[in-house]
Amino acid sequence: MKQSLVIIKVGGKIVEDVGSLDRLLKDFKAIPGNKLLVHGGGRSATAMAGRLGIESRMVDGRRITDSDMLDVVTMVYAGLVNKNIVAKLQACGINAIGLTGTDCNVMLSEKRPVKDVDYGFVGDVKSVNAAFLAGLIEQGVVPVLAPLTHNGKGQLLNTNADTIAGEAAKALASTFRVTLIYCFEKPGVLMDENDENSVIPYLSYYDFPRLVQEGIISGGMIPKIQNAFEALQAGVSSVLITKAEALDKFTGTTIAL
Amino acid sequence: MKQSLVIIKVGGKIVEDVGSLDRLLKDFKAIPGNKLLVHGGGRSATAMAGRLGIESRMVDGRRITDSDMLDVVTMVYAGLVNKNIVAKLQACGINAIGLTGTDCNVMLSEKRPVKDVDYGFVGDVKSVNAAFLAGLIEQGVVPVLAPLTHNGKGQLLNTNADTIAGEAAKALASTFRVTLIYCFEKPGVLMDENDENSVIPYLSYYDFPRLVQEGIISGGMIPKIQNAFEALQAGVSSVLITKAEALDKFTGTTIAL
Repeated sequence: MKQSLVIIKVGGKIVEDVGSLDRLLKDFKAIPGNKLLVHGGGRSATAMAGRLGIESRMVDGRRITDSDMLDVVTMVYAGLVNKNIVAKLQACGINAIGLTGTDCNVMLSEKRPVKDVDYGFVGDVKSVNAAFLAGLIEQGVVPVLAPLTHNGKGQLLNTNADTIAGEAAKALASTFRVTLIYCFEKPGVLMDENDENSVIPYLSYYDFPRLVQEGIISGGMIPKIQNAFEALQAGVSSVLITKAEALDKFTGTTIAL
Repeated sequence: MKQSLVIIKVGGKIVEDVGSLDRLLKDFKAIPGNKLLVHGGGRSATAMAGRLGIESRMVDGRRITDSDMLDVVTMVYAGLVNKNIVAKLQACGINAIGLTGTDCNVMLSEKRPVKDVDYGFVGDVKSVNAAFLAGLIEQGVVPVLAPLTHNGKGQLLNTNADTIAGEAAKALASTFRVTLIYCFEKPGVLMDENDENSVIPYLSYYDFPRLVQEGIISGGMIPKIQNAFEALQAGVSSVLITKAEALDKFTGTTIAL
């Protein structure tokens, strides 16, 4: 019987506000067993870039990462956000370690080829050092992953945090019974985006195309759910989409094949 | 017979210039056996602070670290400098991991008490998680330590990189036969600061007070050598003071009790 592992991805908004971060860490601590946290930090990166006179350019919600912006996200994600979360987890008695994809080659990626858009120093994940992560987790350590990878040739690459969480979940599914939880601003996938009480409790692979066609699921939610289906197909036990404030209740939208 | 471990501390100047960093990493790779790297980054931190309109204040070469400056050093040391070094080491085939003192509680410190000077968020090291570092090293991993610690209560603290190297060396001396190498701008401790050929090859505990009194050893070199003596007294096998460019030759000043 495999041990359980809960992988939680939280967006920048949650980890960048002291009040909501403290609440998150309290809820995170309350989850029993093995855990892994993946965080974003886009809002802080945009703010820091602004202070440095560096313009933030986004295409379809994805950041264009030139050399200056790569330095900013490296500072903000791997430094400011990651180390403050780790210090706070340590203060809660959780033996956290902050990692990027380059540390012990945890996540190797390749620079996204230029097609319609040149995203710059953005990496698509090629492989995960699951053995190293599993070894830490089995020692009782909680990895805290910042959304940065490397190409193995000395180049850091900016990588979407949802993708990091999905890839970590898939790679660890052979060792652990993995629950992947995506936290975002809403309490789940909503039937009506203006009604937080309209959470769809179960979303299946068969319902998904219809809900996209009807415009109920749109925008950034589409790749998030596609990631979820891929994770399930790769052996992840369950995927939940919820908001961080509901983490203690495990409510939200369960994605099912 | 204990395995050997070489701990190298390099200052900011070396790691912040692409040419000298690449040379350092080549020399570092050539050192056989277990290795650990400690880096600074003060010049980059000062430059980044300047770009953000934050004034750098130093007392006796030590940085005053207020809340804004702590964010800057966290970004620069743990993010920009640390992760770029790790990515470059990975590219050389060295399985590096970047760590601060808060990661797996590697280095716990306490905020320096305010006496004549309020250094702000600066930490004096209290304990080292030598077991975790030794476990990594025994797996063939090369820890790369950024000069940041934490107080165990959620607060990151800025800590002198020479101190980090000395404390790591002392804590690991019970497991390994440790050689501690401090790299700085000069080829060793000089009899005449204007003559790079005047390196003192051996500096003993007995000669030290006299050389200080005669003004031959002064300024920031004094605490560096004091750290070296403390490390030797705590069981570190040897301490060398040299410049990064001479790492391949292991020349410089050997500190002896």
